Amino acid sequence: MSNIVNEFNEYRTKMNEVILSKENLVIKRLWNLDTNTYAAGALDVKTKELLGLVASMVLRCDDCIKYHLGKAHELAVSTDEMYELFAVANIVGGTIVIPHTRRAAEYWEALQEG
Amino acid sequence: MSNIVNEFNEYRTKMNEVILSKENLVIKRLWNLDTNTYAAGALDVKTKELLGLVASMVLRCDDCIKYHLGKAHELAVSTDEMYELFAVANIVGGTIVIPHTRRAAEYWEALQEG
Amino acid sequence: MSNIVNEFNEYRTKMNEVILSKENLVIKRLWNLDTNTYAAGALDVKTKELLGLVASMVLRCDDCIKYHLGKAHELAVSTDEMYELFAVANIVGGTIVIPHTRRAAEYWEALQEG
Amino acid sequence: MSNIVNEFNEYRTKMNEVILSKENLVIKRLWNLDTNTYAAGALDVKTKELLGLVASMVLRCDDCIKYHLGKAHELAVSTDEMYELFAVANIVGGTIVIPHTRRAAEYWEALQEG
Amino acid sequence: MSNIVNEFNEYRTKMNEVILSKENLVIKRLWNLDTNTYAAGALDVKTKELLGLVASMVLRCDDCIKYHLGKAHELAVSTDEMYELFAVANIVGGTIVIPHTRRAAEYWEALQEG
Amino acid sequence: MSNIVNEFNEYRTKMNEVILSKENLVIKRLWNLDTNTYAAGALDVKTKELLGLVASMVLRCDDCIKYHLGKAHELAVSTDEMYELFAVANIVGGTIVIPHTRRAAEYWEALQEG
Repeated sequence: MSNIVNEFNEYRTKMNEVILSKENLVIKRLWNLDTNTYAAGALDVKTKELLGLVASMVLRCDDCIKYHLGKAHELAVSTDEMYELFAVANIVGGTIVIPHTRRAAEYWEALQEG
Repeated sequence: MSNIVNEFNEYRTKMNEVILSKENLVIKRLWNLDTNTYAAGALDVKTKELLGLVASMVLRCDDCIKYHLGKAHELAVSTDEMYELFAVANIVGGTIVIPHTRRAAEYWEALQEG
Repeated sequence: MSNIVNEFNEYRTKMNEVILSKENLVIKRLWNLDTNTYAAGALDVKTKELLGLVASMVLRCDDCIKYHLGKAHELAVSTDEMYELFAVANIVGGTIVIPHTRRAAEYWEALQEG
Repeated sequence: MSNIVNEFNEYRTKMNEVILSKENLVIKRLWNLDTNTYAAGALDVKTKELLGLVASMVLRCDDCIKYHLGKAHELAVSTDEMYELFAVANIVGGTIVIPHTRRAAEYWEALQEG
Repeated sequence: MSNIVNEFNEYRTKMNEVILSKENLVIKRLWNLDTNTYAAGALDVKTKELLGLVASMVLRCDDCIKYHLGKAHELAVSTDEMYELFAVANIVGGTIVIPHTRRAAEYWEALQEG
Repeated sequence: MSNIVNEFNEYRTKMNEVILSKENLVIKRLWNLDTNTYAAGALDVKTKELLGLVASMVLRCDDCIKYHLGKAHELAVSTDEMYELFAVANIVGGTIVIPHTRRAAEYWEALQEG
């Protein structure tokens, strides 16, 4: 697995542990709820992950994008599908989304090579 | 068709005509491109409209939300599917999305009754 | 109680009922969690409401602002305290917060008169 | 002068008076500074107003947009110039800027007719 | 004092000097005003710093967060208080605030160890 | 040419090639349109680049800022003009723009030395 993927996952795991160790109940419950949000329901898991990803892109949250790219990769989203999602994000959010698309594209390549 | 749906569509049509009458080529081409973005491709039309809608919700653009709600209604998105999308938008974007969810819920009811 | 306060509360109640009637579990649990967030803890209730209010102001969410202004009024926040909070929001968030400050000031006056 | 222009100016004046009557020094000084920001310097007044306008558009602040449109009208900005600015805002900020462009276009027409 | 704290403070000081050396009066006055905003008034210094911090978190400005975390540390804000503030920021701003919370948590640990 | 300028340009070029190699038509056309947006018209090239820059600053997109700073440097924008633009961005967008102004100032120095 590529370096930038490992680095992201390791930092994320380490800091999540620090945060959860403080036993703040609201944060703990929000994080549980976050997991439930993407469970299969009327919409399937893949559609929900794509929704989470495009929302993260237009809000320009690089780490959120990486997380959902990882999930989309596990769900076998194709590169053509991914770039159509990137297109929606760029059209809705404008050219300020382009730098985040560059980093998303880099991470997506790393996931393919992993 | 309910009042708030008609009002939105009429104002949108009227002002789009004013804007396009000024013959600004960049705006004209961006709007064409916007239409192409949601055409069927590797992702189907319904998925793309849902992506456009969730992006509009987290960016808290009420008129963009109304537009995509109208499209989702034409594509026979169910109310359960819609509320799962609302849930993703509220979790990713936080409680500041709630007032926009209220207006979206009102518009969605109006579309059902229309 | 002034008109704009009543209108806000009535629309909020009406649409919350519509949304909750759809039985989306994520939304329901997020809303419960939202209430818990502002309960007394290491920080007192007044401080937490002021945090929620300034966050709503810099994110420029008029309805969120109104909700927290109502809570701040119940908690007997003074007008001098409120305007110092407005000042923080305007400095951190810039002059784009001014129009929201105008509407917040109008709603605050209405709450005093209520 | 058209209705929507008068309404905006009257509400703005009324609420600015309420806010300034509270004698919050930070807000008062920020507002003075805001005025100074657009004074002629290395950049001329027209360029500065256009900068303030495009910033307001991508941040999607309708009232800020109206204010700067009024100033641009006084400075005899042409409709072609204005729509090129709208185009920059729509490209940088994406299609979520379109609804704000509709309201800006409506206000611009009202200013011409005024 | 931990590395990430020193790095932040050194870069901040260095670049502030570059910026102030250009003698732009508006920037200079805005920065003075920024300092005044957090002075004791109707609200005490600690409350104002917490307001500045939560505003910085929901606006997802990592460097602003670091600055206010440093101030909060000087003012002896407890870790429990801090995580309740983090909870407000995550609920109001949504899960896109989580990556910024991770970096805030890391910086807060560094301040404690410093 | 300074290091941070080269690094930015090289990463940008490399990732743009990756993205364009995927042949997504919407992205390709949006990028062409982006170039056209800044061509001379009713507004001259320099004004348009300044509009793109201030929009990028208030939207706090560091890479977008770097791109437009590079263009502004080619167009011989003076440091006094640049800092007046920075002032507009800081007033409209608030103190959360300051960290981006620091990085912009650093990049601007690098461009002068290049």
